[in-house]
Amino acid sequence: MSNRRVAGPEIERLIQLLAKLPGLGPRSARRAALHLIKKKEQLLVPLAEAMGVAVERVGICSTCGTVDTSDPCTICADPGRDDSVLVVVEDVSDLWALERAAVLNARYHVLGGTLSPLDGIGPEDLSIAALVERVRAGTIREVILAVNATVEGQTTAHYVTGQLAGLDVTVTRLAHGVPVGGELDYLDEGTLAQALKARTRF
Amino acid sequence: MSNRRVAGPEIERLIQLLAKLPGLGPRSARRAALHLIKKKEQLLVPLAEAMGVAVERVGICSTCGTVDTSDPCTICADPGRDDSVLVVVEDVSDLWALERAAVLNARYHVLGGTLSPLDGIGPEDLSIAALVERVRAGTIREVILAVNATVEGQTTAHYVTGQLAGLDVTVTRLAHGVPVGGELDYLDEGTLAQALKARTRF
Repeated sequence: MSNRRVAGPEIERLIQLLAKLPGLGPRSARRAALHLIKKKEQLLVPLAEAMGVAVERVGICSTCGTVDTSDPCTICADPGRDDSVLVVVEDVSDLWALERAAVLNARYHVLGGTLSPLDGIGPEDLSIAALVERVRAGTIREVILAVNATVEGQTTAHYVTGQLAGLDVTVTRLAHGVPVGGELDYLDEGTLAQALKARTRF
Repeated sequence: MSNRRVAGPEIERLIQLLAKLPGLGPRSARRAALHLIKKKEQLLVPLAEAMGVAVERVGICSTCGTVDTSDPCTICADPGRDDSVLVVVEDVSDLWALERAAVLNARYHVLGGTLSPLDGIGPEDLSIAALVERVRAGTIREVILAVNATVEGQTTAHYVTGQLAGLDVTVTRLAHGVPVGGELDYLDEGTLAQALKARTRF
């Protein structure tokens, strides 16, 4: 707010905390707080409850590293998934994004970031040893490295591939190319070069 | 998310509720939920607590109609404010906005909306009778109608002015004109006309 008090400190604290959410700034946090207060029964009460439940129950799956309210998580515990395909992602948000695509019915492994020597993040800070253990167990036939197409993502992919060398598993990566719905004029040269190199018969 | 389950129903419920906040859509609500879960101790726990406190303590000030954790509210209870000036606003968000401008040190009255016959909102649905009561009590010398410059706002202002007629009080309204930092080329004709009519000596 400002240095002038327009409401009790509890409301200002609510606004300050809401402003820390990605996508909300100080102004939209005020709007969100007011909306919550006005829709007390329909929104504030259930959201406070849902957050309380999350505080109590959410944890990290000890198998794949995703966040869930159960361990093993919903995906690891799902008997209908293909145990022979393991999709390696940097972050839980990537897992969620791939699941929205609804193409695979595989298992996942969340690395928890990318190698970044400048930030002091080495292999031991990521869930790479656990990944090698999972692959060594023997049921996995293919590891799909679904990391971001960034320098850090690709570096991490190379390192992981090296760690999996010698194990009886096929390591694959996502295709590069023109995004569906993408206009060539707006794409960078790197993407266009990859799309041309990997062109397929029409 | 999608029809495929990637996490327990508690997390999906948290996302759905977050998506109801103004400024957040389904995608940013997922991002916000993940951010909350990752920053459990620093953000999720305190925010859940702050919301719990808000659920318990926030109410509407029986004097002015704003939301606060005390009744009378922080502003009504402030002994340092000028009792002779009353600022009438449509909504609590307008009160907060005017306080950020930090020009006045007055009291407020929140109408709770605008007259809107099409939506079935008449004078009895707004806090107009209570406003007249407050003015009739006698300490108020000026009522500033700080309503939005919309058709509904102006209609409401006219109605309120009529209700205050005969009482010993000066009714004023906000100036119309060029917003500070505004460029003439981007302003509508109505605003420019008002700015010209209300021009002042340089």
